[in-house]
Amino acid sequence: MGQTLTEQILSDHLVEGDLTPGEEIGIEIDQVLMQDTTGTMVWLQFEALDLDEAQTELAAQYCDHQTYQFDFKNTDDHRFLRSAAGTYGAHFSRPGNGICHNVHKENFAAPGKTLLGSDSHTPTPGGLGQLAIGAGGLDIAVAMGGGAYYVEMPEVVNVRLEGELPEWSSAKDVILEMLRRETVKGGVGKVFEYTGPGAESLSVPERTTITNMGTELGATSSIFETDEKTKDYLERQGRGDEYVELTADDDAEYADEIVIDLSDLEPLIACPSMPDKVVPVREVAGKKVEQVLVGSCTNGGYEDILPAAKMFEGREVAKHLEMIVAPGSKQAGEILAREGWTAEMMAAGVNVSEATCGPCIGIGHVPASDSISLRTFNRNFEGRSGIEDDNVYLCSPQVAAAAALKGEIIDPRDLADELGDLESPGVELPDKYDGSKTDLIYAEDAIDDELIKGPNIGEVPLQDPLGADISGETLLKMEDNITTDHIIPATSDILKFRSNIERLSDFTLSRVDETFAQRAKEAGSGVLVAGENYGQGSSREHAAMCPMYLGIEAVLAQSFARIHKANLFNFGIVPLAIDEETYAKIEQGDDVEIVDDVAAAVESGQEEFTIRVNDDWEATAELNASERERNILAAGGKLTLTKQQAEGGAAPADD
Amino acid sequence: MGQTLTEQILSDHLVEGDLTPGEEIGIEIDQVLMQDTTGTMVWLQFEALDLDEAQTELAAQYCDHQTYQFDFKNTDDHRFLRSAAGTYGAHFSRPGNGICHNVHKENFAAPGKTLLGSDSHTPTPGGLGQLAIGAGGLDIAVAMGGGAYYVEMPEVVNVRLEGELPEWSSAKDVILEMLRRETVKGGVGKVFEYTGPGAESLSVPERTTITNMGTELGATSSIFETDEKTKDYLERQGRGDEYVELTADDDAEYADEIVIDLSDLEPLIACPSMPDKVVPVREVAGKKVEQVLVGSCTNGGYEDILPAAKMFEGREVAKHLEMIVAPGSKQAGEILAREGWTAEMMAAGVNVSEATCGPCIGIGHVPASDSISLRTFNRNFEGRSGIEDDNVYLCSPQVAAAAALKGEIIDPRDLADELGDLESPGVELPDKYDGSKTDLIYAEDAIDDELIKGPNIGEVPLQDPLGADISGETLLKMEDNITTDHIIPATSDILKFRSNIERLSDFTLSRVDETFAQRAKEAGSGVLVAGENYGQGSSREHAAMCPMYLGIEAVLAQSFARIHKANLFNFGIVPLAIDEETYAKIEQGDDVEIVDDVAAAVESGQEEFTIRVNDDWEATAELNASERERNILAAGGKLTLTKQQAEGGAAPADD
Repeated sequence: MGQTLTEQILSDHLVEGDLTPGEEIGIEIDQVLMQDTTGTMVWLQFEALDLDEAQTELAAQYCDHQTYQFDFKNTDDHRFLRSAAGTYGAHFSRPGNGICHNVHKENFAAPGKTLLGSDSHTPTPGGLGQLAIGAGGLDIAVAMGGGAYYVEMPEVVNVRLEGELPEWSSAKDVILEMLRRETVKGGVGKVFEYTGPGAESLSVPERTTITNMGTELGATSSIFETDEKTKDYLERQGRGDEYVELTADDDAEYADEIVIDLSDLEPLIACPSMPDKVVPVREVAGKKVEQVLVGSCTNGGYEDILPAAKMFEGREVAKHLEMIVAPGSKQAGEILAREGWTAEMMAAGVNVSEATCGPCIGIGHVPASDSISLRTFNRNFEGRSGIEDDNVYLCSPQVAAAAALKGEIIDPRDLADELGDLESPGVELPDKYDGSKTDLIYAEDAIDDELIKGPNIGEVPLQDPLGADISGETLLKMEDNITTDHIIPATSDILKFRSNIERLSDFTLSRVDETFAQRAKEAGSGVLVAGENYGQGSSREHAAMCPMYLGIEAVLAQSFARIHKANLFNFGIVPLAIDEETYAKIEQGDDVEIVDDVAAAVESGQEEFTIRVNDDWEATAELNASERERNILAAGGKLTLTKQQAEGGAAPADD
Repeated sequence: MGQTLTEQILSDHLVEGDLTPGEEIGIEIDQVLMQDTTGTMVWLQFEALDLDEAQTELAAQYCDHQTYQFDFKNTDDHRFLRSAAGTYGAHFSRPGNGICHNVHKENFAAPGKTLLGSDSHTPTPGGLGQLAIGAGGLDIAVAMGGGAYYVEMPEVVNVRLEGELPEWSSAKDVILEMLRRETVKGGVGKVFEYTGPGAESLSVPERTTITNMGTELGATSSIFETDEKTKDYLERQGRGDEYVELTADDDAEYADEIVIDLSDLEPLIACPSMPDKVVPVREVAGKKVEQVLVGSCTNGGYEDILPAAKMFEGREVAKHLEMIVAPGSKQAGEILAREGWTAEMMAAGVNVSEATCGPCIGIGHVPASDSISLRTFNRNFEGRSGIEDDNVYLCSPQVAAAAALKGEIIDPRDLADELGDLESPGVELPDKYDGSKTDLIYAEDAIDDELIKGPNIGEVPLQDPLGADISGETLLKMEDNITTDHIIPATSDILKFRSNIERLSDFTLSRVDETFAQRAKEAGSGVLVAGENYGQGSSREHAAMCPMYLGIEAVLAQSFARIHKANLFNFGIVPLAIDEETYAKIEQGDDVEIVDDVAAAVESGQEEFTIRVNDDWEATAELNASERERNILAAGGKLTLTKQQAEGGAAPADD
């Protein structure tokens, strides 16, 4: 039986397991990338592992989220990241050089290679045939140390694109159509492989818009085959020699097939506050808009901004709104400036920002209260823009520019009719991506050979191996669907402590109970109780590290979200499943004791544990874990285990 | 006897008093300007005065400090300001269009006119022969309502410039030399009038660098005569018809004369952390620099950035530092982009920001800890950059660019020698300032006719008329030199409440005693006690409004800073001077009663008041106030008085 492109790449990199969907596999990682809000912890963990040098073919550290540097802690983080990259052999991209996914695509993305990144939009270079996956920071640190990355083998779904995009429709409408059909849960456990004549008709930047926002489907990754367009893109980037032809086997079998006829697509828009609330733009036309932003890793490239710039040329944005363009990379910004488009946009009333992720995660250009903001970004979760009850719509640059000109949401085709002289700008690549590389400090040109830690940069806490006894107070009883945003909020006043677990842990679960951190500190140890789906949402590992730091030894929940459960293992906290009755009976403040010898039981593969509450009644709790996960837990977490293995002479690759 | 230029303009605008230095005069205001962090309160006060329309020839509202919009409150403030400008007939400049002083200079500054602005660097257009003064927000509101502005008649000092600037020296070095000689207190109660062949040799942008930073001398204002260069500048701005020839009379008598031979000036630099700690650059050469910023109202013009851009062309900034250019206006940014300089700077490793004041007041691009930042700004007060214990140096764009290239502080003449091909770039004006005006919404094109208030935009508190009795607890006893930064801190987490006195007042005096606001609220009324120089520093009126809001009725201090004392009058708080013995004897918590009938005594001109402490001992306190100030105090503040006068039919001009 032939292989899909995804299976081919996974086969080439397989170090453990086999390619059975749903089973855990271990793969070798060729490249890693980190951004600034997750990267500091990656390097602190890399340091804690006593590793000397990045073992992957390539490691790249970007500064893109906190580039406005509101606080010295942000600037200190950037300096630390530069020093870590220099010390351990990674490339470093200065703040202002652009968003990790954009800069990586331009400089390093390579067909057929694996990429692991500490950011959920890591799959972006799937548009060039790279298999790229987002993961937690510790997984990156271990992979960079030469260890395998473990992931559930995904189902591979063929998305067959037919036809060609009509005027005023764009690649953004392809992924919005996918979200409309499949929803934000439709990609869980899957890789989407885009094929067919429609895929061939798209340029690489259009393809990466689709693979980037595939993350919103919940997909493990998204990928395109490579072809002349891939080769052409790499050549324009001066990297033609990195081209590899990659196609699925003719007799590849996909788990499923989705067919989209591009010629049917009209301009689409995602309504507040979920990326899959997609409707045709015309259905929401006429709504007054107060802010329009073009940028982000989804639509911040030269090819994304150029169509908007062409629409703005010789025109003016509506007086009552604020129009901001934040290029995804300095390469994009520099070429646009050189070609005169920056001046044209400014003349039209555009505020041209530095290259940054910023506004996409609520860092700068927060919308006004009770107002509509149109953005070419990939997420519009409620409150993510920096204000609760926001009204953020997601759309293509063409739809965004049309709204900016009109002052309200409008299908650009209708605006074209209205204005007469407005032509569909299409997508155009520059002859050559001749942006400078000044802001990339290559590993071989590193200027630092030791870590520079500002006063906010803390130590990575290490957990002791699991002991025989776990008992303590139920410090908090929570409801269903507690998110990692509840556990560790991401607002910028808290985000600035991401490099400092001691300080960050003061905010643990503060959105649920402001007294929690203080009480946990006083207690010294304890357990958490929660309902269904505990730890859903963002993958941030801080949501496990901080409870660990506060002495939490076990979480008793009706069910756990997948990534957070992995993070609990990684940081040595025992995740035990309890039934509805037990959940109902147990109260905050109750003393909980695990009756079994915990360490021995975890190592032996025991699944049922007995908990004794208030020395009064007993119940059963389940540990569902693979042997690998049990080993991690018994060791006191993945960091401790990896460290032990390294010290014991075993390579981290055996993890 | 002939008149100085300052006296000529004041004579033309005099409505009360005579031009005797030290005496209070009332003058008519032709133009007002407001920025975003002070402007919201100006308009709320204008609204509270029930005024319909700005009465000045011109009123302009800019958005420049919080343009990164970290919080929806910033964005809401900008929207409110747009709506207020539209409602009351002011021009509005959108966020991203640039710093008030730069945009005003480009578009509205007019020789011979008076300008009052709610920002301390308002004197900038003195470089075009405009007499411009910074003031508190309520003074702006009243002036905009047609009322006179009252100020102590300054001494006029002649600064005679001879010779011409040598290569690598710049206008920044002229004002740094003034600061070196005269110190930050050298200009108190003075206007500096620049004359002589050296003044004639300077272009308007060079002159405005000097008048702008004259504020750091403590001067009331700074001004240049007008000439062909002024006319030429206005013509290039498309405003040649606004040119007026203005020179001091031949027999004008100045209070003092300072002579500077420009040809003697070498590149200078102000060391941390005061603008008058000026030394030749060569004396601090060799210090490693981690951040360089070019921009601000002092050196953010096209003519300031161009020399730096020329130095960067074809070169690269040092790898270990961050080089940021924030244009002072979008006009500057747009022309630089159109001419290709933006792309050149980006290629050299410059992070080009939107047009903003931001970093100058610690909003964005905060330096890393324990690092040196070189800035072309005007202030380097400790902590102003956003981090305590900062190391901020102030210098010209040429010196900044040289440091960015070298990675350490270096006299640009030495760098020129080192590089061989580095030429002194000089100062050049564009043939035409052909930036677009898209981001200026002229009063006549206003899109709003009612105020739009977000949830953070509060009411202006109004004080009742002064009563017969003042008594209450001494809620806080403070030391000498309490600044307005102590009273109302300006950090961005607090700054965002500037439109909301109720919320802002929670932070009153929090840097002295975190419990103060809560205690004051519980007490309902009370008095403050302080040592010498109470209320020094920034002019922010919030430092009087918030104590008023909390019920403070009197401040007993050994002495008061001038502007803050005026603000206490403006907001109906009685400022009483006590002697050292009384200060020593009175304790926090003591009950203080003013024995006199306060209202009657204030109105009658009584200077000595008796205070009774704890019903136990008595002391004398003095009220030093003009009749005008006593009327304001008796009415319950300037807002209440002006409102009464307007309702009583008297024009606010009678204030």
